[in-house]
Amino acid sequence: MGMIGGGKDAFIGAIHRLAANMDGLIEVACGALSINPEIAKDSGHMLFLPEDRIYLNYEDMIKKEAALPADKRMDFVTIVTPNFAHFAPAMLALDNGFHVVIEKPIAFTSDEAKQLKKKVEETGLILCLTHTYSGYPLVKQAKQMVKDGVLGKIRKVWVEYPQGWLSKMSEREGNAQAAWRTDPKKSGKSGAMGDIGTHAAHLAEYITGAKITHLCADLNIMVPGRALDDDGNVLLKFDNGAAGVLMASQVAAGEENALKIRVYGEKGGIEWAQHEPNTLLVKWLDQPTQILRAGGNYGDRLSSYATHNARTPGGHPEGYLEAFANIYRNFALTLSAKIDGTTPSKEMLDFPGVEDGVRGMAFIDNVVASAQSDKKWWEYSL
Amino acid sequence: MGMIGGGKDAFIGAIHRLAANMDGLIEVACGALSINPEIAKDSGHMLFLPEDRIYLNYEDMIKKEAALPADKRMDFVTIVTPNFAHFAPAMLALDNGFHVVIEKPIAFTSDEAKQLKKKVEETGLILCLTHTYSGYPLVKQAKQMVKDGVLGKIRKVWVEYPQGWLSKMSEREGNAQAAWRTDPKKSGKSGAMGDIGTHAAHLAEYITGAKITHLCADLNIMVPGRALDDDGNVLLKFDNGAAGVLMASQVAAGEENALKIRVYGEKGGIEWAQHEPNTLLVKWLDQPTQILRAGGNYGDRLSSYATHNARTPGGHPEGYLEAFANIYRNFALTLSAKIDGTTPSKEMLDFPGVEDGVRGMAFIDNVVASAQSDKKWWEYSL
Amino acid sequence: MGMIGGGKDAFIGAIHRLAANMDGLIEVACGALSINPEIAKDSGHMLFLPEDRIYLNYEDMIKKEAALPADKRMDFVTIVTPNFAHFAPAMLALDNGFHVVIEKPIAFTSDEAKQLKKKVEETGLILCLTHTYSGYPLVKQAKQMVKDGVLGKIRKVWVEYPQGWLSKMSEREGNAQAAWRTDPKKSGKSGAMGDIGTHAAHLAEYITGAKITHLCADLNIMVPGRALDDDGNVLLKFDNGAAGVLMASQVAAGEENALKIRVYGEKGGIEWAQHEPNTLLVKWLDQPTQILRAGGNYGDRLSSYATHNARTPGGHPEGYLEAFANIYRNFALTLSAKIDGTTPSKEMLDFPGVEDGVRGMAFIDNVVASAQSDKKWWEYSL
Amino acid sequence: MGMIGGGKDAFIGAIHRLAANMDGLIEVACGALSINPEIAKDSGHMLFLPEDRIYLNYEDMIKKEAALPADKRMDFVTIVTPNFAHFAPAMLALDNGFHVVIEKPIAFTSDEAKQLKKKVEETGLILCLTHTYSGYPLVKQAKQMVKDGVLGKIRKVWVEYPQGWLSKMSEREGNAQAAWRTDPKKSGKSGAMGDIGTHAAHLAEYITGAKITHLCADLNIMVPGRALDDDGNVLLKFDNGAAGVLMASQVAAGEENALKIRVYGEKGGIEWAQHEPNTLLVKWLDQPTQILRAGGNYGDRLSSYATHNARTPGGHPEGYLEAFANIYRNFALTLSAKIDGTTPSKEMLDFPGVEDGVRGMAFIDNVVASAQSDKKWWEYSL
Repeated sequence: MGMIGGGKDAFIGAIHRLAANMDGLIEVACGALSINPEIAKDSGHMLFLPEDRIYLNYEDMIKKEAALPADKRMDFVTIVTPNFAHFAPAMLALDNGFHVVIEKPIAFTSDEAKQLKKKVEETGLILCLTHTYSGYPLVKQAKQMVKDGVLGKIRKVWVEYPQGWLSKMSEREGNAQAAWRTDPKKSGKSGAMGDIGTHAAHLAEYITGAKITHLCADLNIMVPGRALDDDGNVLLKFDNGAAGVLMASQVAAGEENALKIRVYGEKGGIEWAQHEPNTLLVKWLDQPTQILRAGGNYGDRLSSYATHNARTPGGHPEGYLEAFANIYRNFALTLSAKIDGTTPSKEMLDFPGVEDGVRGMAFIDNVVASAQSDKKWWEYSL
Repeated sequence: MGMIGGGKDAFIGAIHRLAANMDGLIEVACGALSINPEIAKDSGHMLFLPEDRIYLNYEDMIKKEAALPADKRMDFVTIVTPNFAHFAPAMLALDNGFHVVIEKPIAFTSDEAKQLKKKVEETGLILCLTHTYSGYPLVKQAKQMVKDGVLGKIRKVWVEYPQGWLSKMSEREGNAQAAWRTDPKKSGKSGAMGDIGTHAAHLAEYITGAKITHLCADLNIMVPGRALDDDGNVLLKFDNGAAGVLMASQVAAGEENALKIRVYGEKGGIEWAQHEPNTLLVKWLDQPTQILRAGGNYGDRLSSYATHNARTPGGHPEGYLEAFANIYRNFALTLSAKIDGTTPSKEMLDFPGVEDGVRGMAFIDNVVASAQSDKKWWEYSL
Repeated sequence: MGMIGGGKDAFIGAIHRLAANMDGLIEVACGALSINPEIAKDSGHMLFLPEDRIYLNYEDMIKKEAALPADKRMDFVTIVTPNFAHFAPAMLALDNGFHVVIEKPIAFTSDEAKQLKKKVEETGLILCLTHTYSGYPLVKQAKQMVKDGVLGKIRKVWVEYPQGWLSKMSEREGNAQAAWRTDPKKSGKSGAMGDIGTHAAHLAEYITGAKITHLCADLNIMVPGRALDDDGNVLLKFDNGAAGVLMASQVAAGEENALKIRVYGEKGGIEWAQHEPNTLLVKWLDQPTQILRAGGNYGDRLSSYATHNARTPGGHPEGYLEAFANIYRNFALTLSAKIDGTTPSKEMLDFPGVEDGVRGMAFIDNVVASAQSDKKWWEYSL
Repeated sequence: MGMIGGGKDAFIGAIHRLAANMDGLIEVACGALSINPEIAKDSGHMLFLPEDRIYLNYEDMIKKEAALPADKRMDFVTIVTPNFAHFAPAMLALDNGFHVVIEKPIAFTSDEAKQLKKKVEETGLILCLTHTYSGYPLVKQAKQMVKDGVLGKIRKVWVEYPQGWLSKMSEREGNAQAAWRTDPKKSGKSGAMGDIGTHAAHLAEYITGAKITHLCADLNIMVPGRALDDDGNVLLKFDNGAAGVLMASQVAAGEENALKIRVYGEKGGIEWAQHEPNTLLVKWLDQPTQILRAGGNYGDRLSSYATHNARTPGGHPEGYLEAFANIYRNFALTLSAKIDGTTPSKEMLDFPGVEDGVRGMAFIDNVVASAQSDKKWWEYSL
């Protein structure tokens, strides 16, 4: 793969490399790792890239790689720049025949997202969006349980994503991560809701298979002087009749990255928390709660999606990097199948793509619009 | 004490007796335990009441007890009838000079609640409302920590109360508890919100010391054919600038009685769950989370309110009955002090009263009004 | 009941009163509450005892109460003095026709325990020993599950009881509890093993229904200068072929009262911890672990022993005092049945008695003997 | 690296590759992946190895790789064969100048382990032993806290390792893992103690920095007909005066891989469990328990060893593969430093080596000897 962004000291770029490396299916072949030429070069050396495949900008990389013979050039592009710089390299890559992996959100605006969708449809190329949390085996298990009707009709969805790291004005204290994420020019029209609320919304729709139809958003700026929301609560209605709440906060002091979801149906409920991702609580109306474990030894009680996305037997905890790697692995296996002319399995095909990207941008638009409206229920539109 | 309602097979009456008995300060002296004379008598015998103090209706009990010499008559009345039958006996008791303990909600309507408030103010008698959950030692600890500013300015309140026991139409399957609680004529204008949402709202205001000023409610009837809400989500604004969410559901299949609250301030947060009430998580922006335990051996780190309301050293779990008993014990100690002409301590005085009752009824009114409104933010009024 | 020991400021006496009061079946009728006359009187007043039933020593109380008419005198005696002062009052009470409740250990030596057993058999009176932890509903559930063969043949028993409160030489810093418990003249020949190891051994035998046949003990004095063991680890063999480990420590700094037991059979295992007593984990060889909850809504999946010993529905946590009260309640119900000439149910009869007391003393003898021996396996003898 | 063993379908070989790949520092360059030529070839193709570096036996691989120019040959050998086949390839590799990574246990006998130690000392080459669990960041944190005296003098060590997967005679039902691990010819003189007891013993010595001096072992065969122990309990004494217990069982039905350690000192204790490896409980004598989290935002409260071995900020759970990868990464960084002539940091050098291997074999010898002895305390000898 060829990496755009992700120079040394970048957080998410390093994560992408760890995830891509893990299964031995992907290697970083080239990169345009920084807009700062020195950092770009240093970072390339750090990754043992050959000198001639350390590029100083993405245009150059895409053009030159496209000119290489098919068996020498990168197979796909990974884009790990800040949000405002996702669209242009993605379009250029697609235009030059490269598949694309993009860190979420897919783009800076809904319009960009829709253009990418159109381009993907035209070219038949693959776009993979790294909504990490849908890569966990027990998240996939939860989705299949809902789909199979095990919980009955879904009534209630409750998803929360508290973090505490923006409780102070860290963006003015030299925290680079905080700086761009709280800057509307780099991050977009929403802060916490865009950064982590989108993950929560994606998870809710992914697991339930239902779509949000209406929402009622309360967005807050809790740290005075900040330009974007750092906290928010949203009431939700889904197209299957379920009611829900989504909470995302980056000022929940003392919380790390505590994404958690609960879904209740007529017959039971499920509960999954990212901090202990190898456990899925399954609650029943008239039976004791069960603790499902990733890799658990339960015959076919775990769905094929859960087992396909685990590497180790139960009791060998897998975590965030493995969930991330599952997305890369499924993308890579799908790509291999495509190259080999075979049909990827349904489990391989289960990774987030351009549709999720469009929906993620729409979520931001709708939440922000709802927050600004006096109307109680805002109709969700794409 | 003299008990009104709470005949054999009644759930909450038995709980009140267990709680009142526990500390050896109170005994059931007489009762009008059922409107069914046979049940009233049987129940009186079960409690070893003297024959002449088993009454067949509350009017009789209040009149006859009032006629007894001061050292022979009941000291106070406890009312554990269904919601619609709280007001009349309470008024009569107060009018006859008896202090009153009432199971929440205080009355059937806000108007009744206000009349009771007026009467209490006029008579100088004590009215104690058994909002059980504020009786837990670590709930009191949390309140004091907020009050002392340990968490900094409060930004976020998140309170949830999922139960699952009304997931099916149990009211038509012979479940007497379900029957009256889902019947507007006995329960009032709200179901889940009135029954448990009021507990959640009380807990949030109790711990934070802040008052709800605006709310945006989504009430749902998830079991078709039911007359009252069995599920609801409410966005909250508080008078200290905090934002909040309150969730109450009786169709969260597989949940027992999972009241939980989280409060976040500038410097940290607290988390308390009723299912494991002897643990209070205290989270810090830049320090490891601490596990405070009821009865913990930390010198004066636990507030006097927490230690006053615990009976055993750390590691001897106290539960729901002890929390309930704390309310009775504080009420009884306050009453004793009043009788003895001494001043009750501030810890003794910390039990819910008629103000909480008025506010609880107002919460129901406001939530129901908000749910019926298209306006996003409903201004909370008393 | 008439209470011997348990004057104001005594820890365990207050616990006994809370437990005895709870269900409204028992009341403190008289007491010889301290060997210090002034404390005896003050304590009697504190409990609202009539002046003529506040006794200054137990001999006086037993003699005078025995002389009262049957319907005026105490029904039974409760002994809550330090270990060395259990035997004499118990014998005197039994000799005068009173049933007895004793705080564990039953006596100071095995010989005393055996004399009590003989006396109980001769008189037909009831002796109840307050091994609190066997009073928890889910401990009873575990016992019945083992008995019903749900786990298959039992292979492994693992019981632990870490406390930290004797990590320092508190007995020389004015801690009265520490002072007598670490004093061989008052506590007996063992410290931690006698105080809490006996609870652990009782729990292991109670749940498994198996008896210890061999043990290999390592007793330690971790705080230099102390006369009795404050820590110990014991290998166990049971008469059903199971192997086990028992750990008891009072120098596990930072632990409260963390009694926990795990039992594994061919088909599954159970895990119960006193700190969260309303949860019983049930583990299966090829099924997800289940979380059984006290009061859980599972039809007849909870045994009649578990439901008989709970007062509230699931989600209303009961704790240490309720477990203690269960022992008193079952004793009182058995006593009532005896008085009424009816047959107590098997659930009522399930409280610890004189046999458990004899076995507890034997456990101490055998552990101490094993600890002093160079032989690996010490044969357990009564 | 060149891999010996670990053909397709082998469990631990795949784990080693995942761990080695993760950080992009190591790649599989060649392999002698099976003694079955067909599997060796297929496995090589699966790993995209060049045809000429897919070897059919390890002698061939070592000889031919040694003959390649320095910059073309493998840097080190990884041995992931069953226990009986560790020694020969390790010696040959060292004799030919290759560094070695070996899956634990280091060898089949103590004598072999000692020969390897001698060879490592003679050659100055590096031998890395993959005792995975010491690779977790919070295990390293615990070790440093003990070393820094934060807990005071250590008194008590309690380590447990329950698994349930051998609860049935799986070795006769086609489970290949079970077959070789329960076969004395392939596994060695101990079953559960050798397989997982050694991990527990290593962890205890690693964290405390103390050495076992005496032990008293009870080894059991719980599944009739099995040749090696599947369960065992061991009392321990350490050279710093601490007492301990080690439990290892593969018949704890329903347990996964539940390694857990607790260490108590004069001032506090620590608790770490592999199933939730990102949490370290720190208990204090007179302060609330703290929850230390891997990657936690506590300034320098986490030791440099903990932060060096984490890849992500708090709340992004890392697991078993990352712990494994930490060992590879530290080995690789140490190797790089050696090659570059620089000095590896103390954090890099913290990976298990040949000394740990010798001690692991001695642990097995001593446990088995103790189990066969009637003497209570067996003196641990190397």
